[in-house]
Amino acid sequence: MEFIEKTIERETIFKGHIFDVAVDKVELPNGLGTSTRELVFHKGAVAVLAITPENKLVIVKQYRKAIEMISYEIPAGKLEVGESGSEKEAALRELEEETGYVGELSLIHEFYTAIGFCNEKIKLYLGTSLKKVPNPKPKDDDETIEILELSLKECQDMISTGQITDAKTIIAVQYLTLNQERIL
Amino acid sequence: MEFIEKTIERETIFKGHIFDVAVDKVELPNGLGTSTRELVFHKGAVAVLAITPENKLVIVKQYRKAIEMISYEIPAGKLEVGESGSEKEAALRELEEETGYVGELSLIHEFYTAIGFCNEKIKLYLGTSLKKVPNPKPKDDDETIEILELSLKECQDMISTGQITDAKTIIAVQYLTLNQERIL
Repeated sequence: MEFIEKTIERETIFKGHIFDVAVDKVELPNGLGTSTRELVFHKGAVAVLAITPENKLVIVKQYRKAIEMISYEIPAGKLEVGESGSEKEAALRELEEETGYVGELSLIHEFYTAIGFCNEKIKLYLGTSLKKVPNPKPKDDDETIEILELSLKECQDMISTGQITDAKTIIAVQYLTLNQERIL
Repeated sequence: MEFIEKTIERETIFKGHIFDVAVDKVELPNGLGTSTRELVFHKGAVAVLAITPENKLVIVKQYRKAIEMISYEIPAGKLEVGESGSEKEAALRELEEETGYVGELSLIHEFYTAIGFCNEKIKLYLGTSLKKVPNPKPKDDDETIEILELSLKECQDMISTGQITDAKTIIAVQYLTLNQERIL
């Protein structure tokens, strides 16, 4: 059985700052004919499960326009075009800009967030040995955020009650639950 | 501190079958001025962590055009406009169409997949008491899929090796790891 869908034609719909949109006409495998695929192209992002010396998780409270609601999430940021340095450096920079912390990072998982139509890939890091820096790099000037430091139990409860509804944050909290004896 | 971003103006960029795209001009809170938000609107989806009587996970092998790669995922499908019945019924229908199984479903988590720019929400169900149906509903005619039944250990290994890279599937496998004594 063949799986690959060959691109016959691509129509570019939108070129944005955050993502591009295209519609591909594809040739289906196994003689099934043709179909169309609506696609969102994103440059990728980094996220950090950051653990303070008091064994708290660093959580960012912020407004999310796509859902018109306030959301509680681990620190994260998109990769910039032509960003100098590695993805780990981008994650360290995001952590410092959003939370004022620096620390040591190790990769947990890489995953696609919305694989059915979008190529956004998030690299999720564990951040330990956190230290506050005296003069952290400034955050983006269109971001209004509040930083919380919450226990694992508080985060688990916020998932149960539906206050935490962000996929990457659920992955991070599950991971910490599975590895708490090693990490906390 | 205020968090809410008020919409000043919305420009509709694209109205598709799978998602719509808009760019909002917003008034930032706390006198920070204005900014723009690029947004993807999606009707939402359902997914099922389906456990066979042999304690295997039902995994769908399929091609994903957005990443131009083959992917291994739990069964899932988007909600249709004007779909009759509940989201649980939609999940049961997707499970039957993709895998030929029916079963009993209970909600695990609801989450936003790409909250920074997209409102896609997935309802993730646990599916147990699975039974093969003699004449399952046919799957979408532009889908080429293969159904695998894998142990929890095999799925954990596929996450470690980077063969499973889908966020909803990682959430499901981590959930099962945390609850295996109750479920398996």
